[in-house]
Amino acid sequence: MTDKEYMDFALSLAEKTIGQTSPNPSVGAVVVKDGRILGIGSHLKAGEAHAEVHALAQAGEEAEGADIYVTLEPCSHHGKTPPCADLIIKHKLKKVIIACLDPNPVVAGNGVEKLRQAGIDVEIGVREARALELNRKFFHYIHSKRPYVTLKAAVTLDGKTATSTGDSKWITSDQARVDVHQQRAIHDAILVGVETVIKDNPHLTTRLPQGGKNPIRVILDTQLRIQKEANVLKDGHPTWIFCSENADGTQIKEKYPNLTIFQLPGNYLNINDVLDILGEKSIQSLYVEGGSKVHQSFIQQQLVNECHWYIAPKILGGTDAISVVGGSSPLLMKDATSLDIVSTEMLGPDIKIIARPRKVEE
Amino acid sequence: MTDKEYMDFALSLAEKTIGQTSPNPSVGAVVVKDGRILGIGSHLKAGEAHAEVHALAQAGEEAEGADIYVTLEPCSHHGKTPPCADLIIKHKLKKVIIACLDPNPVVAGNGVEKLRQAGIDVEIGVREARALELNRKFFHYIHSKRPYVTLKAAVTLDGKTATSTGDSKWITSDQARVDVHQQRAIHDAILVGVETVIKDNPHLTTRLPQGGKNPIRVILDTQLRIQKEANVLKDGHPTWIFCSENADGTQIKEKYPNLTIFQLPGNYLNINDVLDILGEKSIQSLYVEGGSKVHQSFIQQQLVNECHWYIAPKILGGTDAISVVGGSSPLLMKDATSLDIVSTEMLGPDIKIIARPRKVEE
Repeated sequence: MTDKEYMDFALSLAEKTIGQTSPNPSVGAVVVKDGRILGIGSHLKAGEAHAEVHALAQAGEEAEGADIYVTLEPCSHHGKTPPCADLIIKHKLKKVIIACLDPNPVVAGNGVEKLRQAGIDVEIGVREARALELNRKFFHYIHSKRPYVTLKAAVTLDGKTATSTGDSKWITSDQARVDVHQQRAIHDAILVGVETVIKDNPHLTTRLPQGGKNPIRVILDTQLRIQKEANVLKDGHPTWIFCSENADGTQIKEKYPNLTIFQLPGNYLNINDVLDILGEKSIQSLYVEGGSKVHQSFIQQQLVNECHWYIAPKILGGTDAISVVGGSSPLLMKDATSLDIVSTEMLGPDIKIIARPRKVEE
Repeated sequence: MTDKEYMDFALSLAEKTIGQTSPNPSVGAVVVKDGRILGIGSHLKAGEAHAEVHALAQAGEEAEGADIYVTLEPCSHHGKTPPCADLIIKHKLKKVIIACLDPNPVVAGNGVEKLRQAGIDVEIGVREARALELNRKFFHYIHSKRPYVTLKAAVTLDGKTATSTGDSKWITSDQARVDVHQQRAIHDAILVGVETVIKDNPHLTTRLPQGGKNPIRVILDTQLRIQKEANVLKDGHPTWIFCSENADGTQIKEKYPNLTIFQLPGNYLNINDVLDILGEKSIQSLYVEGGSKVHQSFIQQQLVNECHWYIAPKILGGTDAISVVGGSSPLLMKDATSLDIVSTEMLGPDIKIIARPRKVEE
């Protein structure tokens, strides 16, 4: 196998653990000597062994003189576990091949430096694009101190999410809805507007046959209008409500220990402030599940990193039906938000489109 | 090669001529003996030689004892050309392999009958599904006496076709627009509402680097509100206007010899009547290019055979923006028009989705 193939193998190990290592990135490692794989590992859980530790443990004494492929720069600092760079040096590896550097300021090049000072060959950038894509949420968070925002919508071919009466059950197929629950499981938090809670009274939990982590529910509710018996309050899982400083949450807070209330200054909620606070609370990834007003707020303020569009092959029709993105349109089509399609995929009868805002050339 | 492979070859010949043989179907033929291809042919133009004639002319005297693969049952009647069944008998072929029978009542099994009576082996149904798909517009027309209706829309991801001010230039890319012109070239007629003519003053012609047939322009214009200097009137290509019996088209008709006016009884246009008349005028395929009211009329009355959705990776936003399908929404999501996705394709940055109304199990 070539360097790229070994690194692809390490990346494939990391990809399987996406979402389960937060707040840490997903990392894979492969130890190779004389064309033989001696050890493989993934980082499996925050606070526990890094990928290199698992892979080197498998390799044991044979690691001496071997190469290790790691999808992210080995750490150089004492965190919850000892530095992986030290472990690599201790095992006397010959060469470390790294897909991409760690943007985390406490690592950022220090891992590489430490290895080189110990006389170990280091190569950087093998399959870098795939590695950056793999941990794009983590990197975004490290750089911006805010969660990576994924806007999710389930729409008809004509862009509608509900009829004129508000009925929306169901737009997409079971297959599409399973995919949505998989996305919930790999996001730190899920966000909706209070209108959605009042209208649909959803749980916003992860419901998959094989189980899955629940995201923290984040509700935008300026006036604290949420119904007292809402499922997101009653079911005991963590819920964070953002409201204005004028709203009174004393009663509801006492009743529900799983509820955290964030009161922001002013009479309306600024999404930028919400994202700053979520970032401070270590929320790296946010899954926004609408309504049309919430979608419009995120789109208009260019706060979306990725769109997941589940399109059902249905035509609803009607200027009175609910459009997926509300508010007021720009005056000119050229002022629409431009995206690039990343992928399209069939989920049963439906199409899933992933798109990201088009990067403006600088 | 196998029977299926020879038939696939004949079908690929026919597919290249889609749209240029109307009102005749697209047909391909391949003559084979001892594993050698002796002749290939497509029907190229209505009124001229059928596929079998071309293929047998190439094969010449060698055709005796050969097999012929034809994508449609050979004709048995004297039309503008002599019956192909007779030609096959005259050439003393051994076997005729047919993808699908001709639904045209003057052929419909008679071609096969004639061949069998002459002692020629006939096999029917090889690659039948692909053959039915190939000529679906022709078959629909023969069965219903109405054109096959393709609804075309260019929309943003949120289902919008114009901003609140009506601006729509441009939603999709050059690549998508070239595809639209290719579709115009293979349709007999193109239909819009007069609102589109008044607002955009389009030509609705086929503009392709390599040329292409112009479809007949069909304008729905109940009150005959079309501007007197509209491009579709001035440019000399055929335009058909459907209006109510109360509208007065005398002046405009005198001015534009390329214009045909159809006056229908009553105060509003019934699309069913329009389709009946188009069918009587031998329009087999109709390309509907909107506005939202026209789209709604076709969708609501279930008159669409196929939808071509060009989705640009843009989000416009706005409840005030123009939705691709107008009118009033059904009260319940389950009453949306259900379709099935036939294909998805990237055209530059855009996605083209082809969908057809879901067949209800009978």
